[in-house]
Amino acid sequence: MTSYYNKVLEPTSRTTLRRRAGRAKYDRAAIDAILDEGLVGHLGICDPDGQPVVLPVTYARLADDIVFHGAALGRLLGTLAQGVPVCFTVTLLDGLVLARSAFHHSMNYRSLVVLGEARALRDTEAKLAALTAVVDHVAPGRSADVRGPSRQELAATEVATLPLREASAKIRTGPPVDAAEDYALPCWAGELPLSLAAGAPLADARCAAPTPAYIDPYRRIHAKSIAA
Amino acid sequence: MTSYYNKVLEPTSRTTLRRRAGRAKYDRAAIDAILDEGLVGHLGICDPDGQPVVLPVTYARLADDIVFHGAALGRLLGTLAQGVPVCFTVTLLDGLVLARSAFHHSMNYRSLVVLGEARALRDTEAKLAALTAVVDHVAPGRSADVRGPSRQELAATEVATLPLREASAKIRTGPPVDAAEDYALPCWAGELPLSLAAGAPLADARCAAPTPAYIDPYRRIHAKSIAA
Repeated sequence: MTSYYNKVLEPTSRTTLRRRAGRAKYDRAAIDAILDEGLVGHLGICDPDGQPVVLPVTYARLADDIVFHGAALGRLLGTLAQGVPVCFTVTLLDGLVLARSAFHHSMNYRSLVVLGEARALRDTEAKLAALTAVVDHVAPGRSADVRGPSRQELAATEVATLPLREASAKIRTGPPVDAAEDYALPCWAGELPLSLAAGAPLADARCAAPTPAYIDPYRRIHAKSIAA
Repeated sequence: MTSYYNKVLEPTSRTTLRRRAGRAKYDRAAIDAILDEGLVGHLGICDPDGQPVVLPVTYARLADDIVFHGAALGRLLGTLAQGVPVCFTVTLLDGLVLARSAFHHSMNYRSLVVLGEARALRDTEAKLAALTAVVDHVAPGRSADVRGPSRQELAATEVATLPLREASAKIRTGPPVDAAEDYALPCWAGELPLSLAAGAPLADARCAAPTPAYIDPYRRIHAKSIAA
């Protein structure tokens, strides 16, 4: 267990939850657990004319940074590399919360918002480490089984990094909370748990290799999060 | 089947996919299917200082609009109601794509980006219709079983609507596409299907009602999408 797991991030005016403040978490253990379980996050940037753009991205956590990658010629990574303000959000949906009134319906979730400025990684070794982390984030151990990036592939890939400095998590768990008088209503109320489920792996038509252990059974809770 | 299902949205300079243009869809059938299956989207706005903010939100599609709701005093809905530019993104993750090289790893997904300006709904009937749609989006038929919003609850809820006018979907399906020379490599390659799965409903401690059919079995593909 590394030291940053014990760290609690200082809430800023931008990451302090004002509504439902009881659901807020600022400690790295909670933040890292969400980051490490998520597969896709949503990255937001602002166009110069004030138009937000939010796109789904894969990512990985590398110690105190989040790393992203994309085509060097793409709009998103090209913008990220300029060091503009970004917002990176990861949401894990854990269930529906069905209350006795429409008003108190909710969802159980764990979400994370990271604010900051991304910067491009241009050093070859650092880019390689980031790309390896992204592959292993999806399936730990996968990078050792596959051909690593060629010089040409590395050049075609832009890698950006966002420090995990200004961030907050928000977590809702548990049953619905109904207004006292609504408990007398006859309708069903409770939770419907939801989770990401893996189906049977589908080898491609030209694959004769056995299915690796990291995808069957497939799990999103990795050892590094459990260690926290 | 209503007429807008046959509509194809005109791609704008902001919604035309430049990379992987073969994955783009601009027809309402594809767009609506993603919207109707998704449970949570990510809504992005820009702060006046150019800082993007991306938050997970529930929503519903009401004909040619997307509706959102939130606390009237909250930051997000308060900003939306001012008619600022927003980006609303829904991502459905369908699987991991494991290629023989790190570079060709990918994901199968269906994502949707909607750009535009949201506006507040202040008419009581329109607000009620939107809130009903949001409840029924989660579980079709649910709104008929629960207590509807009181006058006080309606006043405490801000509802915003975003026209489904400038939007594009992006879809990847199928196995990995490896470089020709990599097919000789011995590693496993293929797809790992992923989907949102519902567990057994958990009635809350004070609930004696039978479990409704709309949550057991729970399905995210609704009749209105299938009709398309």
